[in-house]
Amino acid sequence: MKILYGMPNTRSFRALWALEEVGAEYRYQLVDLGKGAGQTPEFRAMNPAGKLPVLVDGKLVLSESAAICSYLAECYPHTGLIPEPGTADRARYNQWCFFALTELEQPLWTMAKHKFALPKEYRVRDVLETAAFEFKRAAQVLDAGLADRYFLVGDRFSMADLLVVHILSWARVSRVKHGFSRLDDYRERMIQRQAWQRAVAIESEKTGGTE
Amino acid sequence: MKILYGMPNTRSFRALWALEEVGAEYRYQLVDLGKGAGQTPEFRAMNPAGKLPVLVDGKLVLSESAAICSYLAECYPHTGLIPEPGTADRARYNQWCFFALTELEQPLWTMAKHKFALPKEYRVRDVLETAAFEFKRAAQVLDAGLADRYFLVGDRFSMADLLVVHILSWARVSRVKHGFSRLDDYRERMIQRQAWQRAVAIESEKTGGTE
Repeated sequence: MKILYGMPNTRSFRALWALEEVGAEYRYQLVDLGKGAGQTPEFRAMNPAGKLPVLVDGKLVLSESAAICSYLAECYPHTGLIPEPGTADRARYNQWCFFALTELEQPLWTMAKHKFALPKEYRVRDVLETAAFEFKRAAQVLDAGLADRYFLVGDRFSMADLLVVHILSWARVSRVKHGFSRLDDYRERMIQRQAWQRAVAIESEKTGGTE
Repeated sequence: MKILYGMPNTRSFRALWALEEVGAEYRYQLVDLGKGAGQTPEFRAMNPAGKLPVLVDGKLVLSESAAICSYLAECYPHTGLIPEPGTADRARYNQWCFFALTELEQPLWTMAKHKFALPKEYRVRDVLETAAFEFKRAAQVLDAGLADRYFLVGDRFSMADLLVVHILSWARVSRVKHGFSRLDDYRERMIQRQAWQRAVAIESEKTGGTE
């Protein structure tokens, strides 16, 4: 059985949503970063970066949310959540996954780091304005790439959509504006998926839970 | 025939090295970003982000260096430069590729952006110190992950090594220190590869050329 180490309102939502998309059997193990659970020797042995999510599947201990999503899609090929290897669509899928993390997410994570995640002496408030500018610029590239497509790659939902939609939702919750109504519509379409709704319900339970 | 749009001393070195690793037939088309060649309507149509490298292969127009490297490895499976899909090693490969770009490269790119790549009004000098701290922290995770292995994943060179080694070289040229001699040794081992040496020679020609 797979184990997802995660915490609500972090990137672990991506892995949770992905697990629900593929219909995997798994256990969700809460790791409360706020209470220092990411810094224990046991957790550091799994991920020296001390970050979430981590997926454990037998001997495989996997970090990096985008790698987890692609791995899960490959484990359940019948779900069609990742294009076939060696195809142009697989290349485009990878392009969007890397774009999502290095361009679209980066400014949001920069904001979070300089607001609370970095040690205080390394936080620089002036960088928030730069990050807001960079987010809009990345959103413009995404908007041009999405154009009038329903999904980012090919004619079906993939983990690339999942990553991008999670990042757009992160921006929304953080009240960081991009100004592209087409991206709002795209996000709105994607979160109608039942797996998204189940993942939200599970996170909500964890947040309210006593674990 | 594949066409690589690139420029020396940018991330396009990764794609150039990857093309040499797989032994592809290709043409290297110089795009001089300094002369605004990344901003022409023709180039923007290929990559709305205006960034390098871009690989064109038939109808496929691919950006994001890491996606280009994985694509090339998949096109030439006999080279063994990417682990088989669906395996634990493929998952680890993806983990390191995403780590390389979001954790290890990010601080170096942040430095470059705030020194010269961002519009002047968005550059924040104070962030350079934070980036230096973040680079050391990421190098520590890499050092722990590499441990006593010869390669990052499995028992052979992969595009994950290629990306990480390019980033370590970037740090070296930029005189950004990480302090892990094991990473220096690893980089030194990897750049003995003939494909790396050919790619360096090609870049050097382009730099000295009249194109």
